[in-house]
Amino acid sequence: MLLFRYCRCLTQFGPVLPRRPQAFTAAAWCAIRLVGGSSSSNNKDQRWEHPRHSPSWRQALAGLLAGTGAVLAYGLHHHKAQQTDAVNVLVKAKPAQLPIFSQEEVTKHRSLQDGVWVTYKGAVYDITAFVTMHPGGDKILLAAGGALEPFWALYAVHNQEHVLDILSEYKVGELRAEDQKKQQSVASSDPYSSDPERHPVLQVNSLKPFNAEPPPEILSDSYVTPAAIFFKRNHLPVPWVDPSSYELQVDGLPGGGLKLSLDDLKSHFPKHTVTATLQCAGNRRSEMNAIKQVKGLNWGIAAISNANWAGARLRDVLLEAGYSPDVARWARHVQFEGLDKDVTGTTYGASIPLNKAMSEEGDVLLAYEMNGEPLPADHGFPLRVVVPGTVGARNVKWLSKITVSAEESSSHWQQNDYKGFSPATDWDTVNFKSAPAIQELPVQSAITAPANGAVVSRGDEEVTVKGYAWSGGGREVVRVDVSLDGGKTWQVAQLRNSDRGQPPEPSPPPGRAWAWKLWELTAPLPPEAQQLEIVCKAVDNSYNMQPDTVAPIWNLRGVLSNAWHRVKVTISDDKE
Amino acid sequence: MLLFRYCRCLTQFGPVLPRRPQAFTAAAWCAIRLVGGSSSSNNKDQRWEHPRHSPSWRQALAGLLAGTGAVLAYGLHHHKAQQTDAVNVLVKAKPAQLPIFSQEEVTKHRSLQDGVWVTYKGAVYDITAFVTMHPGGDKILLAAGGALEPFWALYAVHNQEHVLDILSEYKVGELRAEDQKKQQSVASSDPYSSDPERHPVLQVNSLKPFNAEPPPEILSDSYVTPAAIFFKRNHLPVPWVDPSSYELQVDGLPGGGLKLSLDDLKSHFPKHTVTATLQCAGNRRSEMNAIKQVKGLNWGIAAISNANWAGARLRDVLLEAGYSPDVARWARHVQFEGLDKDVTGTTYGASIPLNKAMSEEGDVLLAYEMNGEPLPADHGFPLRVVVPGTVGARNVKWLSKITVSAEESSSHWQQNDYKGFSPATDWDTVNFKSAPAIQELPVQSAITAPANGAVVSRGDEEVTVKGYAWSGGGREVVRVDVSLDGGKTWQVAQLRNSDRGQPPEPSPPPGRAWAWKLWELTAPLPPEAQQLEIVCKAVDNSYNMQPDTVAPIWNLRGVLSNAWHRVKVTISDDKE
Repeated sequence: MLLFRYCRCLTQFGPVLPRRPQAFTAAAWCAIRLVGGSSSSNNKDQRWEHPRHSPSWRQALAGLLAGTGAVLAYGLHHHKAQQTDAVNVLVKAKPAQLPIFSQEEVTKHRSLQDGVWVTYKGAVYDITAFVTMHPGGDKILLAAGGALEPFWALYAVHNQEHVLDILSEYKVGELRAEDQKKQQSVASSDPYSSDPERHPVLQVNSLKPFNAEPPPEILSDSYVTPAAIFFKRNHLPVPWVDPSSYELQVDGLPGGGLKLSLDDLKSHFPKHTVTATLQCAGNRRSEMNAIKQVKGLNWGIAAISNANWAGARLRDVLLEAGYSPDVARWARHVQFEGLDKDVTGTTYGASIPLNKAMSEEGDVLLAYEMNGEPLPADHGFPLRVVVPGTVGARNVKWLSKITVSAEESSSHWQQNDYKGFSPATDWDTVNFKSAPAIQELPVQSAITAPANGAVVSRGDEEVTVKGYAWSGGGREVVRVDVSLDGGKTWQVAQLRNSDRGQPPEPSPPPGRAWAWKLWELTAPLPPEAQQLEIVCKAVDNSYNMQPDTVAPIWNLRGVLSNAWHRVKVTISDDKE
Repeated sequence: MLLFRYCRCLTQFGPVLPRRPQAFTAAAWCAIRLVGGSSSSNNKDQRWEHPRHSPSWRQALAGLLAGTGAVLAYGLHHHKAQQTDAVNVLVKAKPAQLPIFSQEEVTKHRSLQDGVWVTYKGAVYDITAFVTMHPGGDKILLAAGGALEPFWALYAVHNQEHVLDILSEYKVGELRAEDQKKQQSVASSDPYSSDPERHPVLQVNSLKPFNAEPPPEILSDSYVTPAAIFFKRNHLPVPWVDPSSYELQVDGLPGGGLKLSLDDLKSHFPKHTVTATLQCAGNRRSEMNAIKQVKGLNWGIAAISNANWAGARLRDVLLEAGYSPDVARWARHVQFEGLDKDVTGTTYGASIPLNKAMSEEGDVLLAYEMNGEPLPADHGFPLRVVVPGTVGARNVKWLSKITVSAEESSSHWQQNDYKGFSPATDWDTVNFKSAPAIQELPVQSAITAPANGAVVSRGDEEVTVKGYAWSGGGREVVRVDVSLDGGKTWQVAQLRNSDRGQPPEPSPPPGRAWAWKLWELTAPLPPEAQQLEIVCKAVDNSYNMQPDTVAPIWNLRGVLSNAWHRVKVTISDDKE
């Protein structure tokens, strides 16, 4: 917690020059002061100018955003760096003057107060002034006082020439030869080496950790998404788990902890099946980025998928572990911990409200099956939580531990991420304590076909529009309105809750509509139109509607992007 | 049900000329044919041109909208009627030729097929062609074959000269003298004569039945709304109930019915207290009317109020009446019936989902107290249902009967009213079966001060904006954004859940935030602005947002009006 609080301070005070480090060469100090000083100018207008569909750029950006993923642009750094070229020349021109530091000296510099030093391939760097410009945000402080190599193995995007260029500007010395040898003896293996193979059709937002979404037009072809194309959202390397020795720990209930093997979970508790849609909080973030740069993976519209999940009910397991109504007098939350961890040993974690976990109608699963098969590695093998109606981030994968508690999870992802803010809130003013952790998601829909920029022939005389719609909290989507003229007039789409040609599933009980609806509308092409602006908006059975536009719901993390979805289509008069 | 199905047919086929009645004078038939024929033109552009704040007009309109409240404009009729003046002169010029009918003959005309006849003060009228133009919609068919007097006593707006003028055009004969005498012996007393006194500060939308809202600036002065200014929404006359002989009937559960006196309810069940906001589905309907005429009372922004309610929990009463989990295998709904009834004996009715009624966290009350006092007559004395988080229409007042059932209430208000539709749906295309009955309401907020059109002095240097925010389903409002520039930039308002100067109430458990929040923002006046467009939008803890604009959520009944609320304020440069 201390680290997070510290990091928040950093974020709150933004790009203000930190206090002068204690040990410093004069030339380097000059360079850093210039860089740091100019970093106090306003960052808000910084934009990524790269086209969205350049794969190398997308992957690079996505990688930058991995993990806790704060983003300040490297582009900003380049701009600032140009202003200090003269000084850099000075620094680079005098390598012989740089001092030798011991590892012990480096390790003293682990904070903005004492300076933030790191080593890389035998050189020592004082990156204090760079901390506030780091695209990956406060994660950089985890490396303070030590070697960068293991972190760059975790977040592979750093292995690029321009990143090394930036680093070189902060070089302040060399690491003592014997300490270099010690470092090299700790092999820096790739923590992603055991990640599973993925289907090549996926559109990759980040390779390490792996984050990818299916092409939208494929997504809406199946009511139940095949596991291979189900969107992948990993915060860390995929852990390899031996199912025969796997154990789930259940803590926080009277009578001490409970340990359950995978066999226990399968044989001692009734198997419960739920069809539930999972959606990343950042789904459709790219539309917010188009308004103003936000922090996070640049998801399109397909960070959402639907599957059949089977497993033990969390409720049943907690009852077995000693839950009684008395517990609800002091407990409010159920915390989950994953087996996926970063180089510091910090594991992924999240929590949900206790009443959701214990409700007979909450349908929270400890799932060991997805679409009738054991969970794939990317989806949490051998066990994950499935919290229907709740943001993906709380559906913890590779589950290792459950704790019933008076408090929410203290994890970064619960406390300082995955929360919504006003468009007026920026990184200088954000107070993460002021907003609730996202649990239920708002009503959502998007157009999967035609694609933005598609051309339809006037000879076809009509256009077929397809998409998905879903709402959080078990609220059933009851209507999708589609407009071909940017929202001036509307038509009602056909909804379905099963695959095309299959009979419709029975309506879910009230409050338990966990799965999306796919929708379709075939409408005549307006005779005069040269272009269509196709828009969709869904309504759930609490009659919540999607907001019209993106800008008024823009938020600095780019979450909860659920404005009307719009695609533009050109009508071609070609006879061909 | 048959009547409703029949009425729906009428509505679906709209203003199409009905089949020719069997008995008819030639001249009257001419007149009606002309009126009926032209009534098939498009009604959509008909508007009320009167200013909104003309009290006589507002009351008249409100009266028209009473009860099931369908509205087609009398103005439409006037327009059509002008086209038939020549014919009317013919009819009126020959009163001596009109035949004498017996009550028995009149009574044969009770449908569009057989003609719709009514009597009024001794004359007989064939109103078949007027049915589709009736501002009160299908209710008019209840009077078919009989006297209008008792209905006009129920819906007092009819007692106006222009209504009599319209009626006169449909006169087809005189009622036989002996039948006139029989009618007069059935005294037509005013069913509203026992309605209680109301506070004069209320802005009346309809006198009979009584529908009124408090002035917005008073509404937000109290966190708990005093009963006297709590908005009133009556569908029918207020029934007078003797508490000593009052009995509640509970049906539909194994073991036969249960009857409970008021004393039973107070003494046999724990008293449970809930602070809950009630909102009419039609709150802010006037903003939809400004887009295109809808059917319903022309509510402003104050058809919402907040009170402390106390009573027995519905759950406890149903358990006492024999509820067990087995019941949930076949039952899905809990139906309520009120003691308020129309002249045909039809009582007000509604239902809620069984899981809401039985949930320990649903907090559904059979309330006998409001703000620490016995329920006032207008709010359901001696007993009403309070369904926190659910649209006002399901909070049945003057409760007489509870029925656990596999079916929803068959009442008009559950089946063919209080449902939401696409803006594309009109009275020609609406299918009430296609939409779910409104239960939970979507997130809502409005500005109570300053009022639209207010003037603020530049010398004040700042403006204070106040309002309320609430969401259905127990979802807590977590933020209200306020804009002074029509939505371009936003500021976050201060929320409170208690009266000004009082300590805040503890946060409600998740999913049980039944009460609104009041909010306030004091902001500097923008130096250059001549006018402010103040806008508010609320966010609940499922991060549902209000839609930006009214037109895309417009619906033919004018319900669920929850777009951003906007008021325009002028900045005065006067030194005074």
